Amino acid sequence: MAHDIVSEISPKPGDRIDDLSTPRPIIDEDRMAANIARVQSYMDTHGLNFRPHIKTHKIPALASAQVAAGAKGINCQKITEAEVFADAGFEDILITFNIIGPEKLVRLTALNDRVAGLKVVADSTATVDGLSTHLATRKPLTVLVECDTGGGRCGVQSPQEAAALAQHIAGKPGLIFGGLMTYPKPNSAAAIQAFLAETMTLLKRDGVECPIVSSGGTPSLYEAHLVTAATEHRAGTYIYNDRSMVRAGHCGEDDCAMHILATVVSRPTPDRAVIDAGSKALTSDLLGFSDYGAVVGYPEAVITNLSEEHGVVDLSKCSGPRPAIGDKIRIIPNHTCVVSNLFDRMVFHRDGFVTRVEDVAARGLVW
Amino acid sequence: MAHDIVSEISPKPGDRIDDLSTPRPIIDEDRMAANIARVQSYMDTHGLNFRPHIKTHKIPALASAQVAAGAKGINCQKITEAEVFADAGFEDILITFNIIGPEKLVRLTALNDRVAGLKVVADSTATVDGLSTHLATRKPLTVLVECDTGGGRCGVQSPQEAAALAQHIAGKPGLIFGGLMTYPKPNSAAAIQAFLAETMTLLKRDGVECPIVSSGGTPSLYEAHLVTAATEHRAGTYIYNDRSMVRAGHCGEDDCAMHILATVVSRPTPDRAVIDAGSKALTSDLLGFSDYGAVVGYPEAVITNLSEEHGVVDLSKCSGPRPAIGDKIRIIPNHTCVVSNLFDRMVFHRDGFVTRVEDVAARGLVW
Repeated sequence: MAHDIVSEISPKPGDRIDDLSTPRPIIDEDRMAANIARVQSYMDTHGLNFRPHIKTHKIPALASAQVAAGAKGINCQKITEAEVFADAGFEDILITFNIIGPEKLVRLTALNDRVAGLKVVADSTATVDGLSTHLATRKPLTVLVECDTGGGRCGVQSPQEAAALAQHIAGKPGLIFGGLMTYPKPNSAAAIQAFLAETMTLLKRDGVECPIVSSGGTPSLYEAHLVTAATEHRAGTYIYNDRSMVRAGHCGEDDCAMHILATVVSRPTPDRAVIDAGSKALTSDLLGFSDYGAVVGYPEAVITNLSEEHGVVDLSKCSGPRPAIGDKIRIIPNHTCVVSNLFDRMVFHRDGFVTRVEDVAARGLVW
Repeated sequence: MAHDIVSEISPKPGDRIDDLSTPRPIIDEDRMAANIARVQSYMDTHGLNFRPHIKTHKIPALASAQVAAGAKGINCQKITEAEVFADAGFEDILITFNIIGPEKLVRLTALNDRVAGLKVVADSTATVDGLSTHLATRKPLTVLVECDTGGGRCGVQSPQEAAALAQHIAGKPGLIFGGLMTYPKPNSAAAIQAFLAETMTLLKRDGVECPIVSSGGTPSLYEAHLVTAATEHRAGTYIYNDRSMVRAGHCGEDDCAMHILATVVSRPTPDRAVIDAGSKALTSDLLGFSDYGAVVGYPEAVITNLSEEHGVVDLSKCSGPRPAIGDKIRIIPNHTCVVSNLFDRMVFHRDGFVTRVEDVAARGLVW
C-alpha cells in the first residue's frame, strides 16, 4: 500500500524543532495558551459570552482548551467541522452558514438529532423553508437570522427584514428562532449596534424572544464591548494570531503562535534567497499585504513571489546578516486559518522541543 | 473513532454530478483526455520528449495515462510526491528541486536505491556537496544543473557558472552529471536557447557529456519547439487547464477539465450572490487576475472577494438571468494546481455522471 510506505514520519514529543523537515507549520504552546487567556479575560471583563471559531485550527483538543478557559461554546463554518467536534463531545455548536440543498440538509438533520445545542443561521426564506422541510418531524433546530451590518457578505439588509425573517422562522415547523448573528466589518461598532438594537426593538414590539445576539470576527475583537446589544462574540484567528493581527494592532510578533518552518534552498544572487515554502505552505492570501509573510529575525527580507513549492525572498534591503543555503527560517504567515487547512497534522512545541502532534481533524472534508 | 463517523460519503460511479455536495472540484474525463492527447501530439510533432509535472494532479492513475499517451517520464517537486509515484511503479522521475538538509537527504537516498531513473537538480556547490555526502557509498544519483534563464527563481546565473557546477558534480563521489534544467519565464525562447546553447558549448569544450536538457512550464508550452537545445519539456497545468491558460491563449474555456462545483447560498441584494466556495476551495491565487475565477454560464459575474468558506459574486453587470439561492454553479479556477492540493479525493465525470473517484495520493505530505 502506497501510504504505508510513504507515510510521513510524524515528529514525536521530545524531537528537536530544528531537526524537523520543512516546510511545516509549528505552534508555540505558551504563546497559544497566552492568546487564549488574553482574549477570554477581555470577554470576561466585559461580561460577553465567547464562542471561538474552530476554522482556524480544526483540532478538538484546542477547542477543549478554549472551553476550559471559559468559552461558552464553539463556532463552525461547515457541517463536516461540526460533525468532527460533535464526535469530540461538544454540545453548543453554532454553524454560521446558510445550509442549502438536500445533500447537506440530510446530514444536518442527523447532526441535530445528536447535538443538544446545535444552531445554524439563515438570511432568506428559501434557506428557512429548506431547513423546515427537513426538520418538521424531528427534534427542532435553533435558527438565528444573519444580518449584514456592513460586512457585505451574507445577511438580511435591514432591521425590518431581520424582524420579518425571525417571524417566518418562528412560524415554521421544526424550527426555533434563536436570535441574531452578524459577521461585521472592523471599526464599525456603532453601525453594528444600531442595526442590532433596532431589530431587537422590532422583535420586542412583535413579542418575539431574542435570546442570542452574536457578533464576531478577530479583526473586530477588541471593540466587541462597544456592541452592547450583543450577548456573545465569535473569533478564530486570535488563538494562533498572524501577520494581519499584528498589523491591526491586536498583538505583537511575539504573540504569533504559528510559524512556518522553511529551509533556504538556493541563494542564486546576493540579493535573492529561495525557500522551500511556496503557495502550498503559506497560501497566496495577501489580506492587503503586498508580500507573503514576515521572516522572523530578518525584518528587511521580503517574500516577493510564491510558486507552489518555492518562495522568492528579496534580501536587497537587509542591512544585517543574510541567510545561507541550508539555514532554517521561520515565517509568520499573513493568514493563519488557511495554512491550517493545508496540513494533515500540526506540530506543537515548547523550548525548542516537540510537545505533541495533533491531527487537523476537520480539514479537507467536503460535506 | 471520529473519522469513522464523519468520514465523507464519497461519490460512487454512476452518481449524478448535480447531486454532489459542494464545494468540490470535478474533472471532465473527455476534456482531460483531449488535453493529454493535444500536448503529446505537439511534443511528438517536434521530436521533444515530454515529462508531465504531477504537482497538478498528484494522482498516479493520471500520470499513467500521460505515460500511456507517450510521455517519457514524470516530474515531481517534492520527495514525498516522488515516493508516491515510485510506489505506483514509475521509474523515470525528475525532482526539480534543490534537496537540502539531512532529513530530506536520508529520504532521498532510500528513494534512489529503489528507483532506476531518479534524477534531481542543483544550483550550488552547497546542494551538490550535501547530495554527495549522503550518496558517496550508494547507487549513484543523477544530478542536473538548474539554470536561471530569466525565470528569477532558482538556478545558476550564467553559462560559465553552469559549466563549472557540472564539472563539480562530475567530480563528486556518488553523483552523475545528468544535464541542464530550467524553469523559464514565458515568451523568452530566444534567451533560454542562448543560455542553454552557450552552456552546451562550454561543456563540449570541457569534454563533459550533457544527455538531458530539460525546459518547462505550461505557460511556455507551445514555444517549446523554439528551444532547439532542449531534449525535453516539462508541464503540469495543461492536463486540467485553468483560467490562466485560457488567458494565455493556450486553450478555450471548453478545454478546462476542472470545475469547482459550488452552491449559491445567499442573494442578499439584487446585485450580490454568495456561494459556498471560498479561499479553502478556490485558493486566493490571482495569477494576475483581479478576481477569483470564471463562472461558467455567467460571463459577466465577478467573484470579487473570498472568505474562507464564502465567495462574494458581483452580478451588477449581468445582462441575462442571475443565479438563485440553491442553484449550483461551476467555476473555472484561476490556478488548478493549488486547488488539487486542498482536497483528499478528486471526482471524475462524463455526461453528467461520476466515472471514478481518485485519492489525491500525494497531497499534504510534509517530507
